[in-house]
Amino acid sequence: MPKISHKGQEMPESPIRKLVPFAEAAIRKGKKIYQLNIGQPDIKTPEVALNAVKNHNIEVLSYSHSAGFETYREKLANYYKKSSIPVEKEDIIITTGGSEALLFAMGSITDPGDEVIIPEPFYANYNGFAIASGVTIKPIESTIDTNFALPPIAEFEKLITNKTKAILICNPGNPTGYLYTKDEIKQLADLALKHDLFIVSDEVYREFAYEGAQHHSIMSIPELSENAIMVDSVSKRYSMCGARIGCIVSKNKELMATAMKFAQARLSPPSFAQIASEAALDTPQEYFDDVIEQYTFRRNLLVEGLQKIEGVKVAKPRGAFYCIAELPVENTDDFAKWLLESFEDNNETIMVAPAAGFYSTPNTGMNQVRIAYVLKKEDLERSLEILEKALKQYNSQN
Amino acid sequence: MPKISHKGQEMPESPIRKLVPFAEAAIRKGKKIYQLNIGQPDIKTPEVALNAVKNHNIEVLSYSHSAGFETYREKLANYYKKSSIPVEKEDIIITTGGSEALLFAMGSITDPGDEVIIPEPFYANYNGFAIASGVTIKPIESTIDTNFALPPIAEFEKLITNKTKAILICNPGNPTGYLYTKDEIKQLADLALKHDLFIVSDEVYREFAYEGAQHHSIMSIPELSENAIMVDSVSKRYSMCGARIGCIVSKNKELMATAMKFAQARLSPPSFAQIASEAALDTPQEYFDDVIEQYTFRRNLLVEGLQKIEGVKVAKPRGAFYCIAELPVENTDDFAKWLLESFEDNNETIMVAPAAGFYSTPNTGMNQVRIAYVLKKEDLERSLEILEKALKQYNSQN
Repeated sequence: MPKISHKGQEMPESPIRKLVPFAEAAIRKGKKIYQLNIGQPDIKTPEVALNAVKNHNIEVLSYSHSAGFETYREKLANYYKKSSIPVEKEDIIITTGGSEALLFAMGSITDPGDEVIIPEPFYANYNGFAIASGVTIKPIESTIDTNFALPPIAEFEKLITNKTKAILICNPGNPTGYLYTKDEIKQLADLALKHDLFIVSDEVYREFAYEGAQHHSIMSIPELSENAIMVDSVSKRYSMCGARIGCIVSKNKELMATAMKFAQARLSPPSFAQIASEAALDTPQEYFDDVIEQYTFRRNLLVEGLQKIEGVKVAKPRGAFYCIAELPVENTDDFAKWLLESFEDNNETIMVAPAAGFYSTPNTGMNQVRIAYVLKKEDLERSLEILEKALKQYNSQN
Repeated sequence: MPKISHKGQEMPESPIRKLVPFAEAAIRKGKKIYQLNIGQPDIKTPEVALNAVKNHNIEVLSYSHSAGFETYREKLANYYKKSSIPVEKEDIIITTGGSEALLFAMGSITDPGDEVIIPEPFYANYNGFAIASGVTIKPIESTIDTNFALPPIAEFEKLITNKTKAILICNPGNPTGYLYTKDEIKQLADLALKHDLFIVSDEVYREFAYEGAQHHSIMSIPELSENAIMVDSVSKRYSMCGARIGCIVSKNKELMATAMKFAQARLSPPSFAQIASEAALDTPQEYFDDVIEQYTFRRNLLVEGLQKIEGVKVAKPRGAFYCIAELPVENTDDFAKWLLESFEDNNETIMVAPAAGFYSTPNTGMNQVRIAYVLKKEDLERSLEILEKALKQYNSQN
């Protein structure tokens, strides 16, 4: 039998999805599960986007431009300009989700053996994209005690070698919910300029900033125009994760010409989804106001609820819709599985994402979970109740 | 300024798309161009597929299963069974185009430095996927004199080293139109078993077989179940290139579990396109009968027309909708550019794909072009007329 690649063997199973078989088994037994494990919002997709697809008049569903519809890139550039991100349509390549934008970025700037520094905990699939690209991730730990703020720049400098090609951040952070301050972004920019590095900034949660906090894009620093690469996606902004539309954005012409070669090899991004995404740019402001109000409410409910549970510590998120909570258990992998397999309260349970999968350093975050506050009030309240009961039972048994 | 990766520098520009700037300039000057260069059919997408998307009742456009809709995979397995490809839904992962299926296959079976043997000329984007994956392509030349039949197995054996992981074929072939015989597939299967190699078979043109010829899938050989990987796509079958839906199919459980990790990292294939692709499986047989009749007519028209032009040699295709023609010019890169920049007949010209980009061996196929017969009768006839006039003028000037 021919052999699987080393790369394939090393590819991690998604920490978000590896509990799915246990959840499926629980569902088959009639258990109801509140899914706090995955960033799949229950928010309705804007009607303007859904209707654009309903009203399509396509006769031949042909390839689009490899960089995506020109009309879409133009409208998107206008949207960015309104968010203090001064880019033109030439600075944008539409991708199949933020995922493909990350792959194009890694392929364009790294060769096998090269290194990328990432503050951890980080979005778990960065591991998969790094392995697929042959890149080594050098993690720097950020901690729950600072709400996962940027680690000291001196810590970054310690890790920089001649193989370091980039620093990758997620702002606001998944899984941390941390929103980098203007000063932190400035510190990163100075570091990148000093060491001639790229900064890849995953800003897919840009709109989700709470308490009036402002988001500071890596693209808003003029000096960094040759170093900054932004990754974006429509998935969360318009609650259209299934569209699979994102983009890679940079003012660096050589980088974009290179990313374009990767884009041409896969021909084009999906057309129906581009129609929906282009139309989504006309979503009325009230939609976002409602959504932010909703998430703010959910965030407060969740964080306050968690703080009330004995032994639970939580980092207060100022962006995105996740938080990391430390639980009074030793191993959340085991606890999360137990929640699905062995626990029920009135035949209901919860599904959480063990946080170890969001760390690259082994045996880190073992007592943490990521919780997505993508469920409605009643479900979040019930989830908190279940978590409290479950922790008691789990700890009395173990 | 930070540096682009070596990988990024090596990524080839698509030979199909690198003439686009010249075409755009010609169009700006008001020239009409008949596009014979790209496999973008003018055939209408089945209404059943387009209507399924029009009639969607989605409220939250959420992620699908990373392997694609279960209902779609079930229907797809039934479709394959009817084509003598005995697979179940568990043997299928839905991908974003055949492109992503190829990337998943390469990632799952090769590490940087590994080798894949491919008969050339081959689909040019295999080069891009190989470079993105760090794989070295070992080409074996097939020739126009045999209509691009499978090169002798002894030639393959000469190239096999301990780094060889797979043989990649395209059946029927893009750009050759060659349809492998049952015996050729059997020879490849024996070779793969003898040397413990994977065979990756790109079968996206399966339905396009002419003169009643039968397509022989790599999946139809039971002994090869651990070695065979099929790549497929809806793009050409239903004239829906813009959907970006394909799949990777294999009975090898370890391989599929590995490909699934790549699939999970990118979350899911596009949802609207899956709706269209699932519905497309209900396309009535008359649609295909009409399409095959149309392509057969076009093929005969094109091949006979080319044979009549002095100095032109053409390999008669039995599948897909391309042919390779040898022209009485030294360098078709130059000729193709000249057609766009300097030639016009009644303000019209043609665009062809220089074939050198489909060869991996340098300076091979320099006098060949790939012609796609995706245009209607009148346009093909006019294109042939233009080609004949252009060749005369080009050769009288040079």
